[in-house]
Amino acid sequence: MASIRDVAKRAHVGATTVSRYLNDNGYVSDETRIKIEKAIKELNYTPNELARHLFRKRTGIVAVLVPDVSHPFFGEFVKHVESKLYENGYKTMICSTTKEKNSEIEYIDMLNRHIVDGIISGVHTLEVGAYLNVDKPIVALDRYFNEKIPVVGADHYHGGEMAANCLINCGCRNVLQFQGAKSVNSPSHERHIAFERIMKMNGATVCTVELEWNRFEEDYFQQVVQEIFRTNPEIDGVFGADLLAIAYMKEVIRHGKKVPQDVKIIAYDGTYVTDIVSPTITAIVQPIEELAAESVRLLMNRIADISNLEQRVVLDVKLVEGESTCVQK
Amino acid sequence: MASIRDVAKRAHVGATTVSRYLNDNGYVSDETRIKIEKAIKELNYTPNELARHLFRKRTGIVAVLVPDVSHPFFGEFVKHVESKLYENGYKTMICSTTKEKNSEIEYIDMLNRHIVDGIISGVHTLEVGAYLNVDKPIVALDRYFNEKIPVVGADHYHGGEMAANCLINCGCRNVLQFQGAKSVNSPSHERHIAFERIMKMNGATVCTVELEWNRFEEDYFQQVVQEIFRTNPEIDGVFGADLLAIAYMKEVIRHGKKVPQDVKIIAYDGTYVTDIVSPTITAIVQPIEELAAESVRLLMNRIADISNLEQRVVLDVKLVEGESTCVQK
Repeated sequence: MASIRDVAKRAHVGATTVSRYLNDNGYVSDETRIKIEKAIKELNYTPNELARHLFRKRTGIVAVLVPDVSHPFFGEFVKHVESKLYENGYKTMICSTTKEKNSEIEYIDMLNRHIVDGIISGVHTLEVGAYLNVDKPIVALDRYFNEKIPVVGADHYHGGEMAANCLINCGCRNVLQFQGAKSVNSPSHERHIAFERIMKMNGATVCTVELEWNRFEEDYFQQVVQEIFRTNPEIDGVFGADLLAIAYMKEVIRHGKKVPQDVKIIAYDGTYVTDIVSPTITAIVQPIEELAAESVRLLMNRIADISNLEQRVVLDVKLVEGESTCVQK
Repeated sequence: MASIRDVAKRAHVGATTVSRYLNDNGYVSDETRIKIEKAIKELNYTPNELARHLFRKRTGIVAVLVPDVSHPFFGEFVKHVESKLYENGYKTMICSTTKEKNSEIEYIDMLNRHIVDGIISGVHTLEVGAYLNVDKPIVALDRYFNEKIPVVGADHYHGGEMAANCLINCGCRNVLQFQGAKSVNSPSHERHIAFERIMKMNGATVCTVELEWNRFEEDYFQQVVQEIFRTNPEIDGVFGADLLAIAYMKEVIRHGKKVPQDVKIIAYDGTYVTDIVSPTITAIVQPIEELAAESVRLLMNRIADISNLEQRVVLDVKLVEGESTCVQK
C-alpha cells in the first residue's frame, strides 16, 4: 500500500507538504495541489484515517446513548440524530443502556480517551455522578445532569396542560396518568404536574401511577395495565406514553368496553404506533426530528468551542387528534 | 496530560517497555509491570486509544447498516447486534441507508481505511457492485452480495409455507400477499414462492403486490392498502410484513368489516407491533435476537481469520397465533 512518502516522492514535493494538503492546514500552491492529486490517483493512495484523526485530535464519531433503540420514540430520535450528524460529517455510535448498567460510564471514558468527539445522552441513568465534573461536549435529551451539560427537550408542561384540557373537554372526571420513575431528574415530569393541576382545577380526580425505572418491555406494561384496570373500574380517562396508552386501550377493549365511549385515551410522544392501532390514539406529539436537530446543533457548537454554553432548548409540542377522545368543540 | 514518556521516566524504564506493557506484546517482568502500574496510577495516565488502535490496526468498531433503524424489525435487530458486539468488546456504529443512497459505499470505504473492523449489512441496496471484490469482514442479513460475504437469515421458505397453510386451514380462497421489491436479491423472497405454491396447490387464488424499493413510511403503506382494498373486494386472506398487515387490517375495520370473520390476516416478522393492535395479529415470527447473535458470531470469525468462510446460516421461524386468523384445528 502506498504511503504518504510514496505520494511525496512521486509528486516531487516534501512529505509535510502532502500532509498539509491532506489535512487542509496551511498553504499549498495550486500547482503543487495538482501534482499531489495526480500522484494520489496514480498510486491509488488511501490516507490512513486513524493517523489523520490522531493528527487532528478528532475521530469524527459521536456516541448516542438511549435506553432502548427499539423503542419507537428512541428509534426515531436515533434515526434523525444519525442523519443530522451525517450532514455534519460525523458518524454515529449507538449504545442502548438498558442492557448494561454501567456502559454509559464507559462512553464518558471514551470521550476522555478520544474515541468519540461528543455524546448525545438520552439515557435514564440514576448515577448522575458519572457526569459530574465532565467538561466535554455532551448534550442531554430531557435530562438534567449538571450545569455544563445543555438540555434539549419538548415543552412538556404545555403538553401536560393540553392533555388535561382535552380530557376535561371530553367530560372525564376520574383520570389516570402513567409517570416514569421520579428518581430520574428529567424535565419530562413537568407534564404530570401540569396535567394534575388542570385536572384538579376542574374538579376531576387524578390517580398517578409511577412506573419502574428503565423498563420498556411490553409484558411489563401489560401487567401494570391489567392490575390498574382491575382495581380502578371508575377510570374514564387515561394519559400515558404511547405504548402504555395502547396497552391500556387494549385492556379496555378486552373487557368489552369501548374507546372513546367508555374510556378516553390520550398518549404522549405521538410516534407512529399511535396511528397503526384502531381506534387511532389522540396524542401530544413531540417534535422528534427537531429534538434531534437541536441536539446535534448544540453538540456541534460545543465541539467547536467548549465554552459555548447555550443551556436549554425547549421545543413546542402539538395535540394531534385521533379517535380515542371525543371531538373537541 | 501525562505521556507514555512521563510514565517511563517515573517507572525508571524505557518507553518501549511501557509500550510493550500497554499493548501486551512482548515480555515485561512482573517487577517492571508493578512499577509501570504504579506510575500510571500516580500520573493518572490515560493511554491514547487512537494511537493504540493505530498500532494494532484495529479500531474495535463495527458498522451496522440497515434501511431504517426506526423500523420495528431493524430497530430490534440493531439493539441485539449492539448488545452482542458489546459482549465481544466491540462498539457499534449505525447507519440508516434510506436517507442517502450512497452512504453504504462510504462505509465499505471506511473498512478499507481502517475506521471500522467489520460491517453487518442489512441494507436493500441495488448497487451490489460496491460489494464486489471486497474481501473484508462483512456479513449480510438476508442479502446475497457475493460468494465471499456470508448470509444470515431465517428459513423464509418454511415461513411462507406455514403462512399459506394457516390461511388454507381458515378457509381462505382469495388471498393477497405483499412482497418487497423483487430487484433486491434477497432470500426473503422465498417466502412468497412457498406461499403461492401451497395456495395454488389448494386451489386458492393468489394476488401478489410488489412494493416499491426501500420505502417504509406509513403513508405509503396506507396508500397502497387503500388502493388494493378498493380494487380487490373479494380478498379473504392477507399475508404481509407486520406494518403492512396492520395497515390492511385497519382498512378492513374502517370499512365496517371484521377481522378475522371477513378477512384473515397473517403477518411476517412478528415484532411487538403485531401484539399491540386489537385484534392481535397471527404472525410468522423471525428469531431476531438469534439473527443478531449469528451475524455477530460470523463477523467475529471473519475478523479473526478472513479465510473463515462459513457461508450461510438459516434459522427457523415459528408461527405465533393471534386473533386475526381462525383457530386452527
